[in-house]
Amino acid sequence: MRKYNVAILGATGAVGREMMKILEERDFPIDELRLLASARSVGTVLIYKGKEIIVQEAKATSFESMDFVLGAVGNETAKHFAPYITQSKTVFIDNSSAFRMNEEVPLVVPEINPADALTHHGIIANPNCSTIISLVAVNAINRLSPIQSMVVSTYQAVSGAGHEGITELEEQMREVIDRKPATTKVFPTQIAYNVIPFIGSILDNGYTSEEMKIQNEGRKIMHLPNLVVSCTCVRVPVIRSHSISINVKTASTISVDQAETAIQSSAGCRMSIDVHGRNYPTPLDTSDQDMVWVGRIRKDLTDERGLNLWCCGDQIRKGAATNAVQIAELLLETRK
Amino acid sequence: MRKYNVAILGATGAVGREMMKILEERDFPIDELRLLASARSVGTVLIYKGKEIIVQEAKATSFESMDFVLGAVGNETAKHFAPYITQSKTVFIDNSSAFRMNEEVPLVVPEINPADALTHHGIIANPNCSTIISLVAVNAINRLSPIQSMVVSTYQAVSGAGHEGITELEEQMREVIDRKPATTKVFPTQIAYNVIPFIGSILDNGYTSEEMKIQNEGRKIMHLPNLVVSCTCVRVPVIRSHSISINVKTASTISVDQAETAIQSSAGCRMSIDVHGRNYPTPLDTSDQDMVWVGRIRKDLTDERGLNLWCCGDQIRKGAATNAVQIAELLLETRK
Repeated sequence: MRKYNVAILGATGAVGREMMKILEERDFPIDELRLLASARSVGTVLIYKGKEIIVQEAKATSFESMDFVLGAVGNETAKHFAPYITQSKTVFIDNSSAFRMNEEVPLVVPEINPADALTHHGIIANPNCSTIISLVAVNAINRLSPIQSMVVSTYQAVSGAGHEGITELEEQMREVIDRKPATTKVFPTQIAYNVIPFIGSILDNGYTSEEMKIQNEGRKIMHLPNLVVSCTCVRVPVIRSHSISINVKTASTISVDQAETAIQSSAGCRMSIDVHGRNYPTPLDTSDQDMVWVGRIRKDLTDERGLNLWCCGDQIRKGAATNAVQIAELLLETRK
Repeated sequence: MRKYNVAILGATGAVGREMMKILEERDFPIDELRLLASARSVGTVLIYKGKEIIVQEAKATSFESMDFVLGAVGNETAKHFAPYITQSKTVFIDNSSAFRMNEEVPLVVPEINPADALTHHGIIANPNCSTIISLVAVNAINRLSPIQSMVVSTYQAVSGAGHEGITELEEQMREVIDRKPATTKVFPTQIAYNVIPFIGSILDNGYTSEEMKIQNEGRKIMHLPNLVVSCTCVRVPVIRSHSISINVKTASTISVDQAETAIQSSAGCRMSIDVHGRNYPTPLDTSDQDMVWVGRIRKDLTDERGLNLWCCGDQIRKGAATNAVQIAELLLETRK
């Protein structure tokens, strides 16, 4: 079997490290694994399948002979390196939002629109974490009857802000328990024992950049150009799984039973049935695994074509790293 | 000025203690303050205006000569004592849900339907905490154009489960930081670093008892018999303010500016403008005070007659104790 050369750009961050773990878990056919990061992480030693790999500085020439570059860096770094990556005839699977809405760039959730991945011109974008988790949950409903609109409120883990987000919550909790003032660096205000209804940057319509992603990315991923989504994104003091409360309206009426049956047999998601005596998932139940878990499906009392549901998924894994590795898997055949 | 005899039934609980604090803060005209609780709290000494008051056991005869009984007990205890209270010609302002939907019992938020309080027959019900906070926020919008429906997701503090809820979160946080397993007694699963999408008991329609309260109590309080509300109630690891993400649809279109102006000039609520550089409230900003704070008002992208908003209010104060004391204040004239 052919093996492939894979680089992780941003290997030392929360998502980069998880990408390495997931490549190992899924036994991705790797010949060389190249770990790339900024100059200050050079020399960091990470372990892949029991072997030490030394992190190298990402440079214009770092991508030669690579088959796939998995990007786990911010927008500016992704934009900076993208031309060098594509010039190297490598496929760049980018977790930043820099290229997601670019018409030349497929935006892919493998359970939903795998064929789009094959139309790439060197770059494939990995969607936003809340978008992935929400859409994997509602994809089965969309197949029963096209989704017209959604009203969404999120409960997003601090891991969405990377290692620094996790560290900030954990340090603030220690400070609060010791009755010290909480030190705030990453989030706009204290997140320990608090929730913050603001993620991303404010746009002209009053929504944040994060809140518009489910609509704008959802249209592209589900091929629903008229989809409208009113979203409120909220940070909660949870370590790594995102939860999402979704009100979804479809073209025709779907029963709760139909939705549950469809979700249970849909790729990438499961109904939470009897989780320690509960029929709903929580972030803790769903951390460090790849499924999106769904529960609390109810008829919308405000519209007969509506359903309410609750879903949880690991933000670092299915919301980022796992989805990127799954996209690479879709392309293995094309790189033979 | 006439003074009144006031009893607190359930004086040692989180809401009962807050009622005493609020009576003192608002300088409620009190002659005798009688603190009542179950036998196991008898002898507890609480301080009111610098004087010690000894908690007595609540009995059938405890209510004689009282003008007001503020109830901060569960449904069964409220039902047990209600006949004795009304026989004593006392007004029972009850925070339990036992009498809220009883047609003979007014259900009152003083900023919304104060006149209803005057129609009582001895019992006035204090609404559910999330209902009070949500309705105080949307009341001004309802006055601009009648509310037809709401889609609501809550972020409810552990104080909603009383002292025991607060203690459970604080003890679990210490356990988690010490890398011990979390001890769960009050909530269905660990609440530290988690969120739990289930509050109350499950009903036939798949909603919980807590989730149906905003619709059912909202109809009665706002005099909107056809109001429909799809609600998802979620417990979050926050100590005492509840937050609520509301999508509200009105009979006619209301602009964001109109809504903001109306809310800013409406009793009991304020727009969060420049809270330490932020334009939205968080639970920590809004704990230990009586206002409902509102922010993030946006046009609903799914319906031109819709608005999205975020609000926070102290669950123990405006969500329970303060609202009950305000109801008593409405009745002072009637007890002259």
